[in-house]
Amino acid sequence: MGSARRERLRRQIDESRDGFLITDLADLRYLTGFSGSNGALFISASGAEGDVFSTDGRYVEQAATQCPDLGVLVARDCVAAISAQCVAQGAEAISLDARSSVAIMVAVEQVGLTVHLQENPVAALRAIKDAGEISALEQACEITSRAVDILAVEMREGDSEIAIARRLEQLFGELGADDRSFATIVASGENSAKPHHEPTGKTLNAGDLLIIDCGALVRGYHADMTRTFIVGEPAPWQVDLHALVARAAEAGRRAVASGVNLADLDAAARSVIEAAGHGEHFGHGLGHGIGLDIHEAPMIGPRAKGRLSADTTITVEPGVYLPGRGGVRIEDSLLVTADGQRSLTSSPRDLRLVG
Amino acid sequence: MGSARRERLRRQIDESRDGFLITDLADLRYLTGFSGSNGALFISASGAEGDVFSTDGRYVEQAATQCPDLGVLVARDCVAAISAQCVAQGAEAISLDARSSVAIMVAVEQVGLTVHLQENPVAALRAIKDAGEISALEQACEITSRAVDILAVEMREGDSEIAIARRLEQLFGELGADDRSFATIVASGENSAKPHHEPTGKTLNAGDLLIIDCGALVRGYHADMTRTFIVGEPAPWQVDLHALVARAAEAGRRAVASGVNLADLDAAARSVIEAAGHGEHFGHGLGHGIGLDIHEAPMIGPRAKGRLSADTTITVEPGVYLPGRGGVRIEDSLLVTADGQRSLTSSPRDLRLVG
Repeated sequence: MGSARRERLRRQIDESRDGFLITDLADLRYLTGFSGSNGALFISASGAEGDVFSTDGRYVEQAATQCPDLGVLVARDCVAAISAQCVAQGAEAISLDARSSVAIMVAVEQVGLTVHLQENPVAALRAIKDAGEISALEQACEITSRAVDILAVEMREGDSEIAIARRLEQLFGELGADDRSFATIVASGENSAKPHHEPTGKTLNAGDLLIIDCGALVRGYHADMTRTFIVGEPAPWQVDLHALVARAAEAGRRAVASGVNLADLDAAARSVIEAAGHGEHFGHGLGHGIGLDIHEAPMIGPRAKGRLSADTTITVEPGVYLPGRGGVRIEDSLLVTADGQRSLTSSPRDLRLVG
Repeated sequence: MGSARRERLRRQIDESRDGFLITDLADLRYLTGFSGSNGALFISASGAEGDVFSTDGRYVEQAATQCPDLGVLVARDCVAAISAQCVAQGAEAISLDARSSVAIMVAVEQVGLTVHLQENPVAALRAIKDAGEISALEQACEITSRAVDILAVEMREGDSEIAIARRLEQLFGELGADDRSFATIVASGENSAKPHHEPTGKTLNAGDLLIIDCGALVRGYHADMTRTFIVGEPAPWQVDLHALVARAAEAGRRAVASGVNLADLDAAARSVIEAAGHGEHFGHGLGHGIGLDIHEAPMIGPRAKGRLSADTTITVEPGVYLPGRGGVRIEDSLLVTADGQRSLTSSPRDLRLVG
């Protein structure tokens, strides 16, 4: 698997370069299966026999298990070791992703190699999921949905945001997840008007809108789902706000299909919110790719360029946030298909009552 | 507070440079109080009136609360916006930390500024904690210790590593933590021989050594503590191994004081393990600084350079790992004082029985 991915990347190395140096850990995991916290990989333009994988002594055993098809250059400073090996193999010029640190670029140049910046070709490869990746994401999304549905009937007035977040992550584990995809967002009452709220000791009070944004992690793959609840009985404005966002989310999901322009997809949902006069209260993009990172290509927003491809996994997550009052967000993880999409997250999307 | 820190940094800007560009988020939080996920700061050599702080529209309200003493340049691409502002202010050459991405360096150079790499001066400032930081770390370490002590009497044979990890993180929340410092490590039986094991569905079995490495997060500050347990009754080799690591950990803690050479500190604990013939089974450094990052300056290992300073917070965490059999690690978070140290973590260090 890793081997076929490396061959696809090899074909994208810029002409006149001797290879591509990979230092991003998620890219490294994608191309090798290695999940340690220190490592680097050189993909040689000349063929697989020129590839060099390096990690440090702590991870030699793990590398032997996770990527038995690769030799391991054991070194504390993987980039320096690979660079020296590249020179020994006769390399002169290599490509590097501009997200790499300046320190890495300097280390490569120090051994006499010329560095050319190349837009990361792994991002585009990673955007198209294979069957194994889709299976991991399906499982992560299924666990996420089930956990939220269990939580929905457990939550009570007086529970704190932090207690709810930790309980949900515990449910992920009980249902078979390796961990959480990211720190669960639980935002109640006025806090729900802040899209990036971090859970606090605030407790649920009657009348609070309650946003829960979360995901389970399975075999390195990140689920992402948001549901909005109401504590006690909703006020009319809360019912209307939720219905508006639900319409926008549905319009967004319906607009998803292979070949669709990313900015058009964003507009399909955003126009619903703008038509209701809340355009200024939807201050983030419509969604993003999910996979080995919680945010990866493609990013979906008003200024996004490019089109959706089949077998890409994305989120669609419109929200409306009214400062001082509260907000609503509804988010699903979707698999893009030739003629539409399949939602991987399955929790009910209606305004459920809590408490 | 942020203002005084920025003045200390200002005094360390290399001569002939117009300022320092900060892009690391923990550095940014230290210098401003801002805890959002997108932002940058220019510290001007000319004085505070030349400083420029930038974040995007999502965080304007948060910035007004967290750093009311700073104006905000609102921009999606903070580095590009700050760079343009620097040119407008007449800057020509700025310093940048080599951990910054190449993309950031290119963005700065694109507006005509000259970039000079400078070793990050914020790391040294952050290594010395003030009273507020020590208070947050004390609280985080106290919560960590209490949670582990509660867990110690709760755990049973048959509990899975993942269930234990999530339960511990739930206890952190119940005791007042904002979150976990890092994904809790629970490693039982053979898994305890892997220092970087990630929790699995493996359940506790009688005779397992059990390593729990964890920390609570309080106001952005990271606790870090490890205790090793035994499930059921220990075998003699397990008692001996634990006693050895406990002796090494004590030797390490006793060697801590302001002015101590970092490599000598590592050696104080390592020599105990080497004398027992297990040098090759202690494959990591003795410890690291803790603060706004879980790993920060100073790093403490055989090749470390420099000395400890008073009011630095560090871990001391020797371990011995026997492949296929099991491992032991004992770790405390310590505050370095003029003549020694004070342990911020307080759980009993003896080999406690679980199950």
